[in-house]
Amino acid sequence: MSHPRIGLTMGDPAGVGPELILRALHSGELALKRQLVVFGHLETLKRCSRQTGLPLPSFKVVSLTDYTTRALGPGSDSVLVDHSELGLDSLKIGVVSAECGEAAFCFIQSAIKAAQAGQIDAITTAPINKEALHAAGHIYPGHTEIFAERAGSKRWCMMQYSPTITCSFVTVHCGYSQVPQLLTQQRVLDVIELTAEAIQRIRKRKPKLIVCGLNPHAGEHGLFGNGEEEQIIQPAIAQARSLGHEVEGPLPPDTVFLPQRLATTDAIVCMYHDQGHIPIKALAFDSAVNTTIGLSLVRTSVDHGTAFDIAWQGIAKPDSMFAAIRLATQLADDSDQGFPK
Amino acid sequence: MSHPRIGLTMGDPAGVGPELILRALHSGELALKRQLVVFGHLETLKRCSRQTGLPLPSFKVVSLTDYTTRALGPGSDSVLVDHSELGLDSLKIGVVSAECGEAAFCFIQSAIKAAQAGQIDAITTAPINKEALHAAGHIYPGHTEIFAERAGSKRWCMMQYSPTITCSFVTVHCGYSQVPQLLTQQRVLDVIELTAEAIQRIRKRKPKLIVCGLNPHAGEHGLFGNGEEEQIIQPAIAQARSLGHEVEGPLPPDTVFLPQRLATTDAIVCMYHDQGHIPIKALAFDSAVNTTIGLSLVRTSVDHGTAFDIAWQGIAKPDSMFAAIRLATQLADDSDQGFPK
Repeated sequence: MSHPRIGLTMGDPAGVGPELILRALHSGELALKRQLVVFGHLETLKRCSRQTGLPLPSFKVVSLTDYTTRALGPGSDSVLVDHSELGLDSLKIGVVSAECGEAAFCFIQSAIKAAQAGQIDAITTAPINKEALHAAGHIYPGHTEIFAERAGSKRWCMMQYSPTITCSFVTVHCGYSQVPQLLTQQRVLDVIELTAEAIQRIRKRKPKLIVCGLNPHAGEHGLFGNGEEEQIIQPAIAQARSLGHEVEGPLPPDTVFLPQRLATTDAIVCMYHDQGHIPIKALAFDSAVNTTIGLSLVRTSVDHGTAFDIAWQGIAKPDSMFAAIRLATQLADDSDQGFPK
Repeated sequence: MSHPRIGLTMGDPAGVGPELILRALHSGELALKRQLVVFGHLETLKRCSRQTGLPLPSFKVVSLTDYTTRALGPGSDSVLVDHSELGLDSLKIGVVSAECGEAAFCFIQSAIKAAQAGQIDAITTAPINKEALHAAGHIYPGHTEIFAERAGSKRWCMMQYSPTITCSFVTVHCGYSQVPQLLTQQRVLDVIELTAEAIQRIRKRKPKLIVCGLNPHAGEHGLFGNGEEEQIIQPAIAQARSLGHEVEGPLPPDTVFLPQRLATTDAIVCMYHDQGHIPIKALAFDSAVNTTIGLSLVRTSVDHGTAFDIAWQGIAKPDSMFAAIRLATQLADDSDQGFPK
């Protein structure tokens, strides 16, 4: 049985991506159960290795052209698909630039093409900087939307996964005040169903879900808010239950994330970005993994940003990156659960 | 030196308030440093004692009329100001009723009058049920607004205090979609100043504050939201700094509540209810205390609701109630710090 092949994108070269890639390639434990295929830039990895003192691990280097035109021979050695055509000589560590935004975008694009061509089984992404991405002319709120456009399906959503707390999101990268108009019964139902499918796949059993309200105290029976709980969220939950899902809610958001409740819940459906990201970062900072569920390919990501302030110092913790690689493997490994892949 | 006199309101009789009062009166440690003056209902406390098996502690009983017309003699014994005129014979445990809402409201009103007459030095409130309050015709979103109306000042806000995480709130009991229109530069500045004053009083040193953004990633330089960070929050922070306060922000809300950041921060100014209540409940459920700062009297409260589902079983944890009584004492004890009292 061959190892699952996990594509790793190097992320924004000026951020912590390169050192996380070095650490991943150096980890004997990670290489044991999967083949790592990095979409990155050899000269940048070498420079990062010199700067940080992190050893340059051994890997096979292939050019992007060779990788896309010739089949890699069998084997489990790590591979770097080198985007040597990118001009990254003037890279400034920890600084936003169009060059780095372009590079980060190219790595993602190559990885998606490879997944779609069946050359890799899943993708784990290192962090990108959105301003750099925009400076390079790629106007996306984040990774999730790039993947959705290229590997889209009728419905998808962001999920943050960790062993202790998992949240999926009805809305995510939009302004605070745009959220209410984006909530619909169908969208809430879609996210409940996507979440149930993903957790079933990861945990191999029927999951228990909680759905948060939008308003303080989940509206407290109409005292707060515009009836979003009664008109949108409750009917979606009722539909999900009639489809056989085990769902509780809408609950007051501030009562959902107590440790004792999390212990008996598989995942929480959140209405907006910070409703789930605040408790996930507070309770599971180093272990949470970002995944986009419902796409035609498996994609996981670290739960943190480019961390420009500590980039290239060799001190960025790789825990979230490693967890993301493990989850990608778990999702890629097992395709018989009806999980959209 | 006489003990500070802390008024305790019994809260909604059908909730966990009565058993928390029994536990507080029974605690030798609490009685050691303060005199407890309960605004409640003797027959209900007796019934709750029989039902739960919690012992009925010894205390002096005075009628409301006697309490308001005659000075209590000196002493540190606990006192029950008995609202015997309330008809609570038909009280149903764990059920919303106008009778219980009316009773809860009367306890608060009596306590506020006593504080304003100088008969007590601070108030700690047991939880009330807002639907019951409304059923009784008292249309307030919560305790905070009742206190603000009766002991109001130009500016006040809710603060949730615990040793590890403390949040104050620019907006609190309103619907999700009402928040943006309630944010003003002056209001953000007021809450920063109130928070700094309160923490100075509690910790006896100049505090370090963080202010959250409103939007995901604090708007990420205009990518998300309607510029609330740039137009409202940043200018308020700049003003606060020019007044000598140590304030950081606006920070991405989901990066604020990491344990390592909380360890070096005294308090966090939050833009809306769940931004602060989610991490407080997740990280400090049993120890957080709700206080309303900026009033003409000191008021603290438990950080949980009436918990109708477990009321009168004797299993409600009194930790938050005890912490609230301790904080009230701390705030009442020391009036030389310029803290509005």
